[in-house]
Amino acid sequence: MKSKTVSELLTQNISLTEVEIKGWVRTFRANRFIALNDGSTINNIQCVVDFEKFDESLLKKINTGAAIHVIGNLVESQGKGQNVEIQVTDLKVLGESDPETYPIQPKKHSFEFLRENAHLRTRTNTFSAVMRLRSSLSFAIHKYFNDNGFFYMHAPIITGSDAEGAGEMFRVTSLDAKNPPLNDQGHIDYSKDFFGKETNLTVSGQLEAETYAMSLGKVYTFGPTFRAENSNTSRHLAEFWMIEPEVAFMDLAGNMDLAEDFLKFVISYILTNNKEDLDFLDKRLQDEEKSKPQDQRSDMTLKEKLSFVTENNFKRVSYTEAIDILRESKPNKKKKFKYIINEWGADLQSEHERYLVEKHFKCPVILFDYPANIKAFYMRLNDDGKTVRAMDILFPGIGEIVGGAQREERLEVLKQKMAAINIPEEDLWWYLDLRKFGTATHAGFGLGFERLVMFVTGMSNIRDVIPFPRTPQNAEF
Amino acid sequence: MKSKTVSELLTQNISLTEVEIKGWVRTFRANRFIALNDGSTINNIQCVVDFEKFDESLLKKINTGAAIHVIGNLVESQGKGQNVEIQVTDLKVLGESDPETYPIQPKKHSFEFLRENAHLRTRTNTFSAVMRLRSSLSFAIHKYFNDNGFFYMHAPIITGSDAEGAGEMFRVTSLDAKNPPLNDQGHIDYSKDFFGKETNLTVSGQLEAETYAMSLGKVYTFGPTFRAENSNTSRHLAEFWMIEPEVAFMDLAGNMDLAEDFLKFVISYILTNNKEDLDFLDKRLQDEEKSKPQDQRSDMTLKEKLSFVTENNFKRVSYTEAIDILRESKPNKKKKFKYIINEWGADLQSEHERYLVEKHFKCPVILFDYPANIKAFYMRLNDDGKTVRAMDILFPGIGEIVGGAQREERLEVLKQKMAAINIPEEDLWWYLDLRKFGTATHAGFGLGFERLVMFVTGMSNIRDVIPFPRTPQNAEF
Repeated sequence: MKSKTVSELLTQNISLTEVEIKGWVRTFRANRFIALNDGSTINNIQCVVDFEKFDESLLKKINTGAAIHVIGNLVESQGKGQNVEIQVTDLKVLGESDPETYPIQPKKHSFEFLRENAHLRTRTNTFSAVMRLRSSLSFAIHKYFNDNGFFYMHAPIITGSDAEGAGEMFRVTSLDAKNPPLNDQGHIDYSKDFFGKETNLTVSGQLEAETYAMSLGKVYTFGPTFRAENSNTSRHLAEFWMIEPEVAFMDLAGNMDLAEDFLKFVISYILTNNKEDLDFLDKRLQDEEKSKPQDQRSDMTLKEKLSFVTENNFKRVSYTEAIDILRESKPNKKKKFKYIINEWGADLQSEHERYLVEKHFKCPVILFDYPANIKAFYMRLNDDGKTVRAMDILFPGIGEIVGGAQREERLEVLKQKMAAINIPEEDLWWYLDLRKFGTATHAGFGLGFERLVMFVTGMSNIRDVIPFPRTPQNAEF
Repeated sequence: MKSKTVSELLTQNISLTEVEIKGWVRTFRANRFIALNDGSTINNIQCVVDFEKFDESLLKKINTGAAIHVIGNLVESQGKGQNVEIQVTDLKVLGESDPETYPIQPKKHSFEFLRENAHLRTRTNTFSAVMRLRSSLSFAIHKYFNDNGFFYMHAPIITGSDAEGAGEMFRVTSLDAKNPPLNDQGHIDYSKDFFGKETNLTVSGQLEAETYAMSLGKVYTFGPTFRAENSNTSRHLAEFWMIEPEVAFMDLAGNMDLAEDFLKFVISYILTNNKEDLDFLDKRLQDEEKSKPQDQRSDMTLKEKLSFVTENNFKRVSYTEAIDILRESKPNKKKKFKYIINEWGADLQSEHERYLVEKHFKCPVILFDYPANIKAFYMRLNDDGKTVRAMDILFPGIGEIVGGAQREERLEVLKQKMAAINIPEEDLWWYLDLRKFGTATHAGFGLGFERLVMFVTGMSNIRDVIPFPRTPQNAEF
């Protein structure tokens, strides 16, 4: 007899069959009903024990968190809440769990407590649901790109190029920390370091992805990226995963089409394939919302937010138009925004993005043609000389979820933009080469994976959607 | 009219249709035949130009590497070597490529030269084929695990735990490199560093994956790992990707079943889905082999090696048996091995592994039950007290491709093994917790992704199967 998973048993039609299963005890009620979970699904299987047939000493070990091995008959359930249950004929305890010391008791734990026990938190319903959804989303992303002719590309993690300027970087080194070698000028002699130069953890794989787009056509990255920024907020991680597609011969309009199609696909995939985990998280969020003051509650449930994305066309609005709308908006005139919009050129905040999505357009919004001076050097300059072909996609509740652009493909314009912010040409010789040899229109975008997982799971702290979060003062596990 | 890819056009049946395509010129022959490639396939599409209808100045720009935009009629080809071709009606040069300076000319370049131009090397047949295969293999891996109920888990890259001992680590830091803060004892004060402690780049996600296996049941990692080892060989990288499945309630036999099934699936996937790239690389390898002395040539072609894996049962042999076979083998007795096998306890080298696979058993081999003292502390000790439930899978040409084990699930035994190699319990308190609360048999394995890509592509230098290799003295791009 081969062991089955709980997920397999609960979807199995055959009853009165002898089955074997291993898992962890969630609860043991009335010395009779074991709720058993093995992580394969949010649901437990009920194992019914006839306590007269088993040693009391054995039954005493059936505590929350214990690993057990059950053999029994799968039958239609007599009770409510489940279709089938196991009438236990044989029972072994594989690993005990002392109820006095086991941290994950069958009660509500604070997320902060569970973060401190991140190695055990996936033994709870909420975190197992979140991490199954995270896994399913990852697969949906790979599937979308694979089905659409993209090649997955592993951008380097350790980088010798510090030109992207997306943020503070972590240094990667093998030098003696206390007595590093110095050169004649008294500076650190990085030529003696492992890579013969100063190296850091990447902040983005985009520039490298562009080299692959300009040869393989359609590519994407999906890997870890890093920021050494001392931001202790519920939206920032020092280590997070990013998805960055990059496509040759694609312009900004094509980029918008791609991003919209991609987001709709992955969210539809979750709605279809992860119903039970979504139902659980939807209900969890509704319970959480009830404890908030009325004016801070969300207008939409979790599943309503997801359908809002899959069922609406994304409205495409230029930055300039958006500024006009915001300037004339009620919250701006009544000074309800924390940051009042006065002038063209202002950087939009989350409150403005959410206003556009949730109040004004009532659909996901793609803003494009941003002022050049608030966007990165590699974005394609428009003929007006002051805007670039950038786009941000705005979602309800969360604001910006995707940032992208058509890239500057003209060698001379790119050189000027680099010079203006003091990036030496020799630092990005290989990036410039793409504009010297067979240059062409190309575009791409970046999506912070954890932002997407937060949106899909309804979790409000980014530390709760990645297995072991890295934040200032915290690299436990 | 929507642009098509070369791959789409070559598999299209409709002829005499007007088509539009963008790509890069591979060659331009007789002022008439453009071989155009866009990375979607190893094949080029032939674009036939009637030079009398186009300006000479335009045609002069049709050089290798130039990006062009072609409109024309897709017709049955008159010439050999292709079924369809495009009779060009309109032609634009999007980005020129100066033949005097463009590095990737239509001739044979050394792999060393191409490594120095890694940003352009996927514009060659060999590297585009390798990287498409790498992408396809990645997808096959995700698909296998997803289809079999595994959850993908992102193990942390930055780690505060240095207990795994798999190799030298890179330090990750934000401290001032030249004047780091010191504590009262004159040591570096890592409490002032970003994470409040000393941190490094991970060498393996296994220990963290175990925490997820012991809650979600079946999980796997697929992410970058690092070694700060000064190994300048064709088999070592400082940064490489690793796949690490980990399964609760699975023993060593189950681990062998899983690894064999997994490897057969991903290699079959490639054989089915990547025929053209494989054919090209198979031929490339045969050409390369011809230049070698007879006795160094492989007995098998690339595709024969792949079928050798998919069509044979993997032979399961204990380490002890393998030592007996090797000790009695001809190359051992005739001292043809570089390392002569004399005693039980010897660490096997690639020459021994390959002998077992290629000469003795003539099939992939799984060795198991290794001496405890040559394997890691977390492997399950057998009742003999001197071997552990470890396994290595050996492939032709390459030797070890997978290393795995059943894990030590007994708290007291694990503590003793940690104490013996001076790992403080407080460093791995969370790992020990898995044995305190609901412990159970579990097992998993690790597969170096680049090793697998080498095996599948027939490339002999690991630097040629990852986009931008990181090795001692090299972190370019």
